[in-house]
Amino acid sequence: MFFKVKTSEEALEILKGFDSVGEETIFIGDALNRVLSKATIAEEDLPGFRRSSMDGYAVLAKDTFGSSENLPAFLELIGEVTMGQASTGIVTPGKAIRISTGGMIPDGADAVVMLEYCHTLDEKTIEVSRVVSPMENVIMPGDDFKKGVVIFEKGAILRPQDIGILAGLGIQNISAYKRPKVAIISTGDEVIPIDQRPKPGQVRDINSYTLSAFCTQAGAIPVNLGLCKDIFSDLKEMVAGAISTCDTVWISGGSSVGMRDMTLKVLESFDNTELLVHGIAISPGKPTIIVRIGNKAVFGLPGHVASAMVVAEIFLNPFLSRLSGEVSVSQDNHFYLKAELERNIESASGRDDYIRVKLNKSEGRIFAEPVFGKSGLISTLVAADGLLKIDRNTEGFYKGQIVDVMLFRPFR
Amino acid sequence: MFFKVKTSEEALEILKGFDSVGEETIFIGDALNRVLSKATIAEEDLPGFRRSSMDGYAVLAKDTFGSSENLPAFLELIGEVTMGQASTGIVTPGKAIRISTGGMIPDGADAVVMLEYCHTLDEKTIEVSRVVSPMENVIMPGDDFKKGVVIFEKGAILRPQDIGILAGLGIQNISAYKRPKVAIISTGDEVIPIDQRPKPGQVRDINSYTLSAFCTQAGAIPVNLGLCKDIFSDLKEMVAGAISTCDTVWISGGSSVGMRDMTLKVLESFDNTELLVHGIAISPGKPTIIVRIGNKAVFGLPGHVASAMVVAEIFLNPFLSRLSGEVSVSQDNHFYLKAELERNIESASGRDDYIRVKLNKSEGRIFAEPVFGKSGLISTLVAADGLLKIDRNTEGFYKGQIVDVMLFRPFR
Repeated sequence: MFFKVKTSEEALEILKGFDSVGEETIFIGDALNRVLSKATIAEEDLPGFRRSSMDGYAVLAKDTFGSSENLPAFLELIGEVTMGQASTGIVTPGKAIRISTGGMIPDGADAVVMLEYCHTLDEKTIEVSRVVSPMENVIMPGDDFKKGVVIFEKGAILRPQDIGILAGLGIQNISAYKRPKVAIISTGDEVIPIDQRPKPGQVRDINSYTLSAFCTQAGAIPVNLGLCKDIFSDLKEMVAGAISTCDTVWISGGSSVGMRDMTLKVLESFDNTELLVHGIAISPGKPTIIVRIGNKAVFGLPGHVASAMVVAEIFLNPFLSRLSGEVSVSQDNHFYLKAELERNIESASGRDDYIRVKLNKSEGRIFAEPVFGKSGLISTLVAADGLLKIDRNTEGFYKGQIVDVMLFRPFR
Repeated sequence: MFFKVKTSEEALEILKGFDSVGEETIFIGDALNRVLSKATIAEEDLPGFRRSSMDGYAVLAKDTFGSSENLPAFLELIGEVTMGQASTGIVTPGKAIRISTGGMIPDGADAVVMLEYCHTLDEKTIEVSRVVSPMENVIMPGDDFKKGVVIFEKGAILRPQDIGILAGLGIQNISAYKRPKVAIISTGDEVIPIDQRPKPGQVRDINSYTLSAFCTQAGAIPVNLGLCKDIFSDLKEMVAGAISTCDTVWISGGSSVGMRDMTLKVLESFDNTELLVHGIAISPGKPTIIVRIGNKAVFGLPGHVASAMVVAEIFLNPFLSRLSGEVSVSQDNHFYLKAELERNIESASGRDDYIRVKLNKSEGRIFAEPVFGKSGLISTLVAADGLLKIDRNTEGFYKGQIVDVMLFRPFR
């Protein structure tokens, strides 16, 4: 089996072999953070008419040429643009029409002179003390987006302002990739539901809750299938159901060798199955298995939740992005913060180490403090703000060295 | 009114005068990203019993003293710990009991020797080729959290692993601050619903959709009250309803001076009202007003959505954090990325400028490209990945200078 132990890079490459989930049509009001499954085209010009970007007077620019505070131009005020309506007046040489920001530029006018540079002499006359150029303070039809242009490429994630643009263009519904459904199974004879009091030897189900919240955070839909004892037929039935209803299956818990072996046997007992990864050269997180059953990826995650979370951050995160159809610049959508390491850290070669670190701010500097503790403790994860990767070709980092800390989300 | 124009710092300080919203009890499965309104105390030890952190054999450490590959210790195998149960056997000198990761350490044993360092001679005898220290590979009761200890302080945001810990401790429900309800009103005679085709002079309602999505992103609940024409009594009625049902009111649109004046008059017409901010020394975003009505903050936001978004990022974001009860290290929960500026940018003094920038990656370097465009364009916001602040005491930045770009979320 040892030939199936992969490097991080190999495991990530293997995960690229899975396709995005299907598409659905959704209302833009529900589309925040969703990924477009089709490029979006502007079906009309935005804006659709010439708009003023300032409060002032719509004029012919050439009427202001040569004007200054000492030698203002005098223009006849012939009306005002009503917001939301086309102007009934037409600007001809020597005339001006009052206009507000966002108002429609009247026919004839080719510029707007700002209110600040005008002085009202009487009801019918204004004094302009500054030159405006043609098109000054005028937004032309299509200046934002011209009809036919691609606004968003397929694979784009929608942010608040992007949804605003869709609204502005009257695009009420978009094609988005579905949110991936993730089946979560927690295994192990020692694991009990959280509403029960553990007897000696029993522990409550931490992993399901942690992984469900992780899925939600990543924009996926967790489908919590609950607990499974160390019984082959039970787990097989649960996985079969999970595969038929969800886009991927995550099996966690079962920290014992026996449970892990059983999980692998169950996964290999399906038709059309392939063991892709049996161990990854990282710490923590080594005993991770990835099996393809049909076109679905099934993950056997380490039993320790601290290890499972590292695997989730490094592998499940980009995997979910891929299922979601997201087209990112890189596979790594984490945020990194530079920090000064508070002490030396050594690392074994041959594997990527992920050290939990806590960030401490002091006098404008940010320090990274490694959170050490016995293997298997989960409190270290709670104390940590992020992870520090020590590459397998690096022997460690020195105290005072500037390191890049991969942050847990949400950021505190 | 000019004395009410505030600096960013003054405006932020004023916003600290508002209290957090009320509390509610929620299930931990729904608590991701929620803010704790009470400190959480461990009501029991975690773990509740001595656990093995490795697969191996529970032994008395002193039985292994002096053992090595050349001179192994021989121990009598007297049983195996069943996962999820207390061991029936007791480890006495010269005995060993098989144990899996997470298993309960049998009475008598004080260490676990890893499987790798043991060799089974026959059904009843193992050979141990390595010394273990007392407590080695043993997690003690309370090693994660001792009964009575504070796990999370009031004001903490819950991350996936934090929810896992709550599950592990059997804490099914927590006290959290409610998600702030934000009333959103879009004003202006030119603004129409997005399902209508604009006539000349009309534009669709971009701001409501942008601000609603912004609220959702920030963990708040947008209550979209719809459009309001430039009619005093209509707006007053809408605001009165909004104040009585929501935690804050955001009025946007109405880019004309007339609409802005009317909005201010409406807000000042309420009893128990105070104009806190009338203009902020930032660009874009200067024509922002903040009024206190009773104990609620009502914002009059700039009409241009690009300006409104800057105000949202800089002021509404920390304001919502405050309403949510979040206790952060700083008021600024944005993420910043260092980038090389692609060209010189000048800035007027006396105000903080926020330049939209696009990030370009090339050969491992990140470049920040200012996105310029006519005032009032919204496409610049879509093209941008974040904002670059030029402080009012700074004249600008040089091409090639390393700058901190405040990123829009979600990150692309």
